[in-house]
Amino acid sequence: MQIVTTVKEIKEIIKNWKGEGKTIGFVPTMGYLHEGHGSLITAARSQNDKVIVSIFVNPMQFGPKEDLASYPRDLKKDSAFCESLGADLIFHPEPEEMYHKNFSSYVDMSVLTEELCGLSRPVHFRGVCTVVNKLFNIVQPDKAYFGQKDAQQLAVIRHMTEDLNMNVEVIGCPIIREEDGLAKSSRNTYLSKEERRGALILSKSIFMGQKLVKEGMTDAGELVEKMKAVIETEPLARIDYVKAVDGLTMQQVDTIKAPVLVAIAVYIGKTRLIDNFIVE
Amino acid sequence: MQIVTTVKEIKEIIKNWKGEGKTIGFVPTMGYLHEGHGSLITAARSQNDKVIVSIFVNPMQFGPKEDLASYPRDLKKDSAFCESLGADLIFHPEPEEMYHKNFSSYVDMSVLTEELCGLSRPVHFRGVCTVVNKLFNIVQPDKAYFGQKDAQQLAVIRHMTEDLNMNVEVIGCPIIREEDGLAKSSRNTYLSKEERRGALILSKSIFMGQKLVKEGMTDAGELVEKMKAVIETEPLARIDYVKAVDGLTMQQVDTIKAPVLVAIAVYIGKTRLIDNFIVE
Repeated sequence: MQIVTTVKEIKEIIKNWKGEGKTIGFVPTMGYLHEGHGSLITAARSQNDKVIVSIFVNPMQFGPKEDLASYPRDLKKDSAFCESLGADLIFHPEPEEMYHKNFSSYVDMSVLTEELCGLSRPVHFRGVCTVVNKLFNIVQPDKAYFGQKDAQQLAVIRHMTEDLNMNVEVIGCPIIREEDGLAKSSRNTYLSKEERRGALILSKSIFMGQKLVKEGMTDAGELVEKMKAVIETEPLARIDYVKAVDGLTMQQVDTIKAPVLVAIAVYIGKTRLIDNFIVE
Repeated sequence: MQIVTTVKEIKEIIKNWKGEGKTIGFVPTMGYLHEGHGSLITAARSQNDKVIVSIFVNPMQFGPKEDLASYPRDLKKDSAFCESLGADLIFHPEPEEMYHKNFSSYVDMSVLTEELCGLSRPVHFRGVCTVVNKLFNIVQPDKAYFGQKDAQQLAVIRHMTEDLNMNVEVIGCPIIREEDGLAKSSRNTYLSKEERRGALILSKSIFMGQKLVKEGMTDAGELVEKMKAVIETEPLARIDYVKAVDGLTMQQVDTIKAPVLVAIAVYIGKTRLIDNFIVE
């Protein structure tokens, strides 16, 4: 497995692979990999000739008061993890390699980015769209893999590739959870022991919401209230949002009628965690 | 020569061409082609295995009070012209094919788009960047050709492809002029006989500016004033801007020191025309 840090070098490698007719599967990440990322790499490994993982903590998608500086990093551990899952190449550029001195372009989206995380993180999706657009142009993958945990991100990226006619198939993969239910996230590492226990309230609320829908609840307002009530039983939790939205447009819905995304964002202490389920 | 109207169909054709190892030259246009476009098609023909011309009057790059509805169109004449110059394919989509119902992504740029035409046409470059980004993803050209007449557009597109790591070489081609000096433009067709004569003031001002720089003038303010004075001798002319800017950043300069772009936009009656020269 190779680790490549420059755009020039990876483009040359990819040109050679394309020339040999190889298909390319791509897993873009911010590193500090866990089994959630692992499931994406494994999916990519099973469906493509070559597998590329990018590890890049993208400054552009962090707000000024967010956790860019403290975001966890461990390239050595990540490399061993990628290699163990059969990845062929890690792309790990420095910020200066991705954003040169006169960088001034961006990719953004109206509608889908206005709800949910877009409300509390106003510059976030512009940063995500721009860096994923760049990475797609650099890696030129046939297929790219994203976790369903970041449901709005997945919808936004899928929409961007369709709107801009990009030549890549975007594949969403299921949420991977700890044994006790907590959705895997690099940000879980921020949690103290007590907060780790309190964070379980997210998945509890999600599982209850899923059960209510399965049992026939169709009133979105009622569902959201029930899920909020669960979260409010946890003293360490502060709700950012609990919402039911259209699975394609991310606009709030009144009635649970597939495709619907039920998504939550909750602060546990200072750490903002997200979770969701889809009604299909 | 084929005329193709859907993204699906052209992508299939291009996939086949790429599979055969053909290189692709691309000339994006809004149609109503003249010898300026012709020079781009000829350049593309000489440097690539396949030549694609797109003809698409892009609604997104017109402001609400601009000339979208009246923009001249003549597909039959354009087709014959492209065929005579050896183009292999015309891509001529309807607006609905390029912008489907839920379209909401865009590509934009700070800095380069704030000066010159960006001031008088605030949504223009967002529309240009977005459609050219889409067209590059659809056509996947090795090389794309743009006229130096739209100097800021050329700089913006070049910058976008670099910022977003797009896999295309952007090539600028010289301004083509009528025998009397007027820069060729599809919008020249708007001019009455009297306005057509008055429009000569643009190239007169440009030629004089070029001469002054050649003779050693380095004060940008002085140069601009001299050029403005020439334009103001024409009663039908109303200046939008006359500016000397850095050739890369499009920011105004005080001193003429290469690379500098000297650009003008002038209304002749209701028709807005542009012209420029580069100090290299």
